[in-house]
Amino acid sequence: MTARTLQGFMELLPEEQIVMENMKSVIAHTYELFGFAPLDTPVLELAEVLLSKSGGDTEKQIYEFKKGDTELAMRFDLTVPLAKYVALYNNNLTFPFKRYQIGKVYRGERPQKGRFREFYQCDIDIIDRDELNIVYDAEILAVIYTVFNKLNLPAFKIYINNRKLLSGFLESLNIADKTVDILRLVDKIKKIPEEAFLGELADMGLSQDKNNNLLEFIKISGLNNDIISKLEDLKISNDNFITGLSELKTVINQAQNLGINPNNIQIDLSITRGLDYYTGTVYETFFDEYPQFGSVCSGGRYDNLSSVFMDKKFPGVGISIGLTRLFDQLRANGLLNISGPTPNKVLIVMQNSDFADKAIQLAGELRRNNISTDVMFRNCKFKKKMEYANKIKIPYLVIIGEEEVQNDTYTLKNMTSGEQHTLSMNELIEKITNLQ
Amino acid sequence: MTARTLQGFMELLPEEQIVMENMKSVIAHTYELFGFAPLDTPVLELAEVLLSKSGGDTEKQIYEFKKGDTELAMRFDLTVPLAKYVALYNNNLTFPFKRYQIGKVYRGERPQKGRFREFYQCDIDIIDRDELNIVYDAEILAVIYTVFNKLNLPAFKIYINNRKLLSGFLESLNIADKTVDILRLVDKIKKIPEEAFLGELADMGLSQDKNNNLLEFIKISGLNNDIISKLEDLKISNDNFITGLSELKTVINQAQNLGINPNNIQIDLSITRGLDYYTGTVYETFFDEYPQFGSVCSGGRYDNLSSVFMDKKFPGVGISIGLTRLFDQLRANGLLNISGPTPNKVLIVMQNSDFADKAIQLAGELRRNNISTDVMFRNCKFKKKMEYANKIKIPYLVIIGEEEVQNDTYTLKNMTSGEQHTLSMNELIEKITNLQ
Repeated sequence: MTARTLQGFMELLPEEQIVMENMKSVIAHTYELFGFAPLDTPVLELAEVLLSKSGGDTEKQIYEFKKGDTELAMRFDLTVPLAKYVALYNNNLTFPFKRYQIGKVYRGERPQKGRFREFYQCDIDIIDRDELNIVYDAEILAVIYTVFNKLNLPAFKIYINNRKLLSGFLESLNIADKTVDILRLVDKIKKIPEEAFLGELADMGLSQDKNNNLLEFIKISGLNNDIISKLEDLKISNDNFITGLSELKTVINQAQNLGINPNNIQIDLSITRGLDYYTGTVYETFFDEYPQFGSVCSGGRYDNLSSVFMDKKFPGVGISIGLTRLFDQLRANGLLNISGPTPNKVLIVMQNSDFADKAIQLAGELRRNNISTDVMFRNCKFKKKMEYANKIKIPYLVIIGEEEVQNDTYTLKNMTSGEQHTLSMNELIEKITNLQ
Repeated sequence: MTARTLQGFMELLPEEQIVMENMKSVIAHTYELFGFAPLDTPVLELAEVLLSKSGGDTEKQIYEFKKGDTELAMRFDLTVPLAKYVALYNNNLTFPFKRYQIGKVYRGERPQKGRFREFYQCDIDIIDRDELNIVYDAEILAVIYTVFNKLNLPAFKIYINNRKLLSGFLESLNIADKTVDILRLVDKIKKIPEEAFLGELADMGLSQDKNNNLLEFIKISGLNNDIISKLEDLKISNDNFITGLSELKTVINQAQNLGINPNNIQIDLSITRGLDYYTGTVYETFFDEYPQFGSVCSGGRYDNLSSVFMDKKFPGVGISIGLTRLFDQLRANGLLNISGPTPNKVLIVMQNSDFADKAIQLAGELRRNNISTDVMFRNCKFKKKMEYANKIKIPYLVIIGEEEVQNDTYTLKNMTSGEQHTLSMNELIEKITNLQ
């Protein structure tokens, strides 16, 4: 039998996995800092539940199968399971309901570079009954900002827009019937040449004037306050447009109150999130120097989370980080700080296996002092043990030899500086604790 | 469309999920304290890889399906994926290789109370090439001991045995050919009445003498050192038996050096782990007052992890905690300390939505000081906001009213004691930080 892993399924070496787990932990802790509670839903659901809302491409990609008489499917995102969860348990939840979920989702895409069939999504959503205050949209901005700052990644910018602006604008031009096509097209503007964009726009059969109006509109640029001024100067009296503009202003102002560096936020009227179900604020996040990564964190505001399952109205706002793909791209570009394959602070080695008792007692004591510790028990030459210590890049080595046993001491070696000290157990614990 | 979750798939409310996540985190951190590195393998594997070793019941329970031309299966444990991983990547790993994995596994069992089709396993294994020092078996004991102490659960005992003792003993009686049947039977001794046990033993067609010998052997009891003395007194000259006894003695002695309370470890010669692939030390863990939970953490030593995939020899020792079932049983018996549905320390409420700016600025500042904070932005009466604060059991409430805005202060209410203080922002941050 040949050992093989399926294509499109990420499997990491320990030194990489430690970095991945660290990223997951930073994301989870930041989500909790903003008051999001953890949620964990099944990977498997009834196929009819998962497919209730989707269609087209998603359905083709889904891992679906029958067990007994039941049609099952593996989740392809964390949003449909959340919609189900809120529909099922809303009577037991406290609203506004803020949950985060970090979990694997599955899409049976044709495998290609940078695409995964199993990948982590790290989602947050804030959901309320009937109505959700627009200030929460600014809170989401602050979460994205804080997460990417804490992850210590390359410079990034969060692009923000409000869908009501474009739809209100189209209504004001009397071309609301083209909204779906135009949304789809605008979503592509950064991915296709301007000529192609203009060609597709022309194909829609609008007047040249309206085409120009539209192009001018989505190209409005400048500092956030300039863009807002320019939008106000348009003096469009459409209700949708007016609401969208007021929401966007609130979000930008409150982002400032939340202490977000204004350089990390950019209003961009061409951000629409294509055919997604968003109805207000939309977010995308790009690394300044790595636009080819695509958006590493996207989301938006929606009117009604659980509409497929029930009549009650649950508006919400949320975002998702596609962690597996992000990790893969960072790694490919040498942007991860991968050190050793071990979470240990300390490795204990003995010059002679007769000293095992002393080594073990020390290991117990260090761990009781919350210092992650390993002991090399393999029966091999001392030189081999030192090679092992170097290979796993251990920060601190404790050596137990003849002298240490006789004097009841321990030799601590700082593997970075090469410094070496002979210490009592208490001195050793104090030194390592202070060095952490 | 009716929202439904599949039977046998655990789904928790936020206040329960917080406890579950806390348990996962205690387990992961303890594993890391002992030097285990995280690992994450796919949920989906090639069916032939997962089924390489199994048969019978496992095969019937597996979620298996075809996508395109590929037979896929969902993992039913974390051991087969580990065997595959070591076979695939052993040239890139450093041995001894210590990994932990906390992940969901899948078994399509007939649903019944307390059985899950999707459940968490929390595994550790220590694997070496060719040979693995027996001291690692004591390290595993220390991990189990530390995990269950840190989880703060009811009193527990780790039962330990060495399979070489029983197989050596059977060899010495010249009934080694019955080993499989006897293992299967001994494994049941605590689950069936002694009469039934004796009946099944009699059915094996051994002499009455040998039956008595066997029964006497597995019933040897007492303090660990007494059991070891009694085993030594048997003066059995079989090699397997002698090795087993020496290994067991080392494990018990080193457990003491590691600082494990001897009351938490009990040698039990009837622990065999049935038909599992273990070859030496075996472990089971029971709560003293809740034997009906069954073993909450089991495992053992094996000779060759990846034998299905390759010729190289990788002996190892490992254990697994069945977390989903454990959580379910603890919950059913009221043994979980479930508090509120939020991870927040602080909730900010305003008496009037005009004070949103001040509330938001404070939220930003508290979070920058690592205090998990939520703001209630819902437009509702102040009384409703206080009801919400009580419902989510927030520890600290910050109230922003007319006076606070005028004086640039904040009113902090300790929701447990009812104490209230009016403070500056710096005083507020200091107070909450010190109270944490």
